[in-house]
Amino acid sequence: MNIAILTIGDELLNGDLTDTNTTAIARTLLEHSLPVHEASTVGDNEEDIVAALQRLASTHDVVITTGGLGPTDDDRTTRAAARAFERPLSLNDKALTQIRAHFSSRQREMHPRNEKQALLPGRSTVIANPDGTAPGFHLQSKRADLYFLPGVPPEMLAMLDEYVIPSLLKRFPNPPARGQRVMSVFGLSEPEVEARINGSNLPDGVELAFNVDFPMVQVKLRARGENVQKLLDRAELSVQKALGDHVVGIDSDTLAGTTARILSTAGLTISLAESCTGGLIAKLLTDQPGSSAFLERSIVTYANSAKVNCLHVARKILDHHGAVSAECATAMAKGVHATAHTDISLAVTGIAGPGGGTVDKPVGTVYLAMTSPWQERVERFNFSGNRDQVRLRTACTALDWLRRLAMSRLSGEEQER
Amino acid sequence: MNIAILTIGDELLNGDLTDTNTTAIARTLLEHSLPVHEASTVGDNEEDIVAALQRLASTHDVVITTGGLGPTDDDRTTRAAARAFERPLSLNDKALTQIRAHFSSRQREMHPRNEKQALLPGRSTVIANPDGTAPGFHLQSKRADLYFLPGVPPEMLAMLDEYVIPSLLKRFPNPPARGQRVMSVFGLSEPEVEARINGSNLPDGVELAFNVDFPMVQVKLRARGENVQKLLDRAELSVQKALGDHVVGIDSDTLAGTTARILSTAGLTISLAESCTGGLIAKLLTDQPGSSAFLERSIVTYANSAKVNCLHVARKILDHHGAVSAECATAMAKGVHATAHTDISLAVTGIAGPGGGTVDKPVGTVYLAMTSPWQERVERFNFSGNRDQVRLRTACTALDWLRRLAMSRLSGEEQER
Repeated sequence: MNIAILTIGDELLNGDLTDTNTTAIARTLLEHSLPVHEASTVGDNEEDIVAALQRLASTHDVVITTGGLGPTDDDRTTRAAARAFERPLSLNDKALTQIRAHFSSRQREMHPRNEKQALLPGRSTVIANPDGTAPGFHLQSKRADLYFLPGVPPEMLAMLDEYVIPSLLKRFPNPPARGQRVMSVFGLSEPEVEARINGSNLPDGVELAFNVDFPMVQVKLRARGENVQKLLDRAELSVQKALGDHVVGIDSDTLAGTTARILSTAGLTISLAESCTGGLIAKLLTDQPGSSAFLERSIVTYANSAKVNCLHVARKILDHHGAVSAECATAMAKGVHATAHTDISLAVTGIAGPGGGTVDKPVGTVYLAMTSPWQERVERFNFSGNRDQVRLRTACTALDWLRRLAMSRLSGEEQER
Repeated sequence: MNIAILTIGDELLNGDLTDTNTTAIARTLLEHSLPVHEASTVGDNEEDIVAALQRLASTHDVVITTGGLGPTDDDRTTRAAARAFERPLSLNDKALTQIRAHFSSRQREMHPRNEKQALLPGRSTVIANPDGTAPGFHLQSKRADLYFLPGVPPEMLAMLDEYVIPSLLKRFPNPPARGQRVMSVFGLSEPEVEARINGSNLPDGVELAFNVDFPMVQVKLRARGENVQKLLDRAELSVQKALGDHVVGIDSDTLAGTTARILSTAGLTISLAESCTGGLIAKLLTDQPGSSAFLERSIVTYANSAKVNCLHVARKILDHHGAVSAECATAMAKGVHATAHTDISLAVTGIAGPGGGTVDKPVGTVYLAMTSPWQERVERFNFSGNRDQVRLRTACTALDWLRRLAMSRLSGEEQER
């Protein structure tokens, strides 16, 4: 069963917008063991859309398109579909009713331009859009089922879940099981990860692939056929043995999500003092619902006055050692610890760049300090990369410190019992 | 001149990674008036890569590929290129020298696996990789110039700039001028923006397109031929008149970048008190180099204890009105203002979801408060969407408040002169 994705829109080809729909569709399909074979992108040009639709529909069983169903003149997908498969457009009553209902339920006026979105190709089925104005449609060519969805990601995903997946599973009721397990790794390079894993015993039938999602390395385990999940479980265990605590998450777990979960489970509270990361560590932790269980505060002391004022860092530390120093990081961590009364406090100070570097402390020089009843820790790092990379790597290192400390508290408590 | 992009990698088709390379390449090419016609994505499968290369090379003048040049077994691009155009692989001395130099300059060991990356197809030219291990290569088929680049974005972009663009401009020395101007708009819906613009007078030869990049609306102006920049300048002026202060940035300007720039220009300092945004506002502002000129601190008071402790919000405000209230937002803003001594202080408190909503204050209820010598402002918002969308829309609204206040200070000062 060959599935193709076609994303439509000039903004995808002129650098304005990144195609996140292909990723989201592919992820969802793979959860149902439906693999994507190919993805293409064309602009809002009727000829190009027609050509792509005809090519993909002749070489694939399923084509899922996104984009070009909007109310403005540059939305051309529906007309292209009608031309590609010779199905004249006509006003679809069901579609028009849905569009009208969408507006009235939000007590808003329907703009006359929205009526265009109810003109659909003949012999196509409306796909309801629960969150937006553009209904989608499902059309069958000689070989292929084609599903036309809007480009707006939350709308597209809702329609994928509610109509397209059930429709696909009706056509392909027992897709040969495929499974994938993704393991996120922090603190090792890609060749280091591969080398450590190749020493371990992966079960037969499990394929391995690697990916860098800065600053993580992702290990992808893939298997097919009978007992897919069992195979993947065994492979996961082998890789876990090979990589130890460097594994920070499985599948959609992120380093931040894992850290949040372990902090909550361990019942630990934390406070942060951020300089060069400018709020990024707190932002990553508060991306997780329920972070209020452990995050009490983050003091973003971007100016030295804030370090002195909020965190009581002694002026002479700034004068003698500078804001980017082990002494300052330690003073910041102790400063927030003294007022927040959390279990753990962590501080970061550094030079994210592009400016601000010196010979002794080049761009990428970062100090982390962490204080708790169980350990004091301060360390200097020399991170490479641009401003965003230095900030992100710093934030991830901080999360990793918190994660490891929380893990050791959890296992320590277990040992005490 | 027809240009196609081919991104290669299983992680692009199974939901693991979003293709940002197509966007980045397309943006760079368009800056040189080189338009991208089509983009495709295939997995790390030799047959699929061979088929895609042959198809695109027969229908396009230029094919730029990314991915699959790494040192691990799942990297198949080079072998596929050799097969597609019948150029047997051989060890390329120049490539091997470059790989060795990359490792020695970083005082690191070259892994034997890295040698694979010096095996290139016959009659191809090495493309130096200044930042990574995988050299690229340039191969000519009957019709097309094909450029094979690594998938790692910063490496790929450096090689695009240093080798590919000059090579393309040598082949197409006078591309018919094309230009684009992107105007980011905040505070109006897409149909509202289109309706307001359609009343204005765009010059002939300028095309219009719209895009939603949540929570902004992007207006794209495109023109070709003689005097492209002048046409776009006139069109930009028309749209600016139609949309007024809702325009927050031109081309790659972001709302955060524009806000940072105007605050710096106006010589204003700011401090923040963030609850539901959890550091996101500070993070967006500190993404901009030079933000230390205006951002003194952000106090992320995620717990109520932090609101009382750091910002001196009176307990009885929390007891009577709750943490999500106009009274609490105002107290937070005044609290940080009293200690930070910045010109402006802004506070946000709200319910980002998914939990925490009530009948009176559902998920999406957010209060913003801003205090300065010139105005006091507090407002309640009812934002729709998921947790990420509520947080992002809140942060953008806060940035917009700061932007508008700074703009009025700048124009007020001009009037006083």
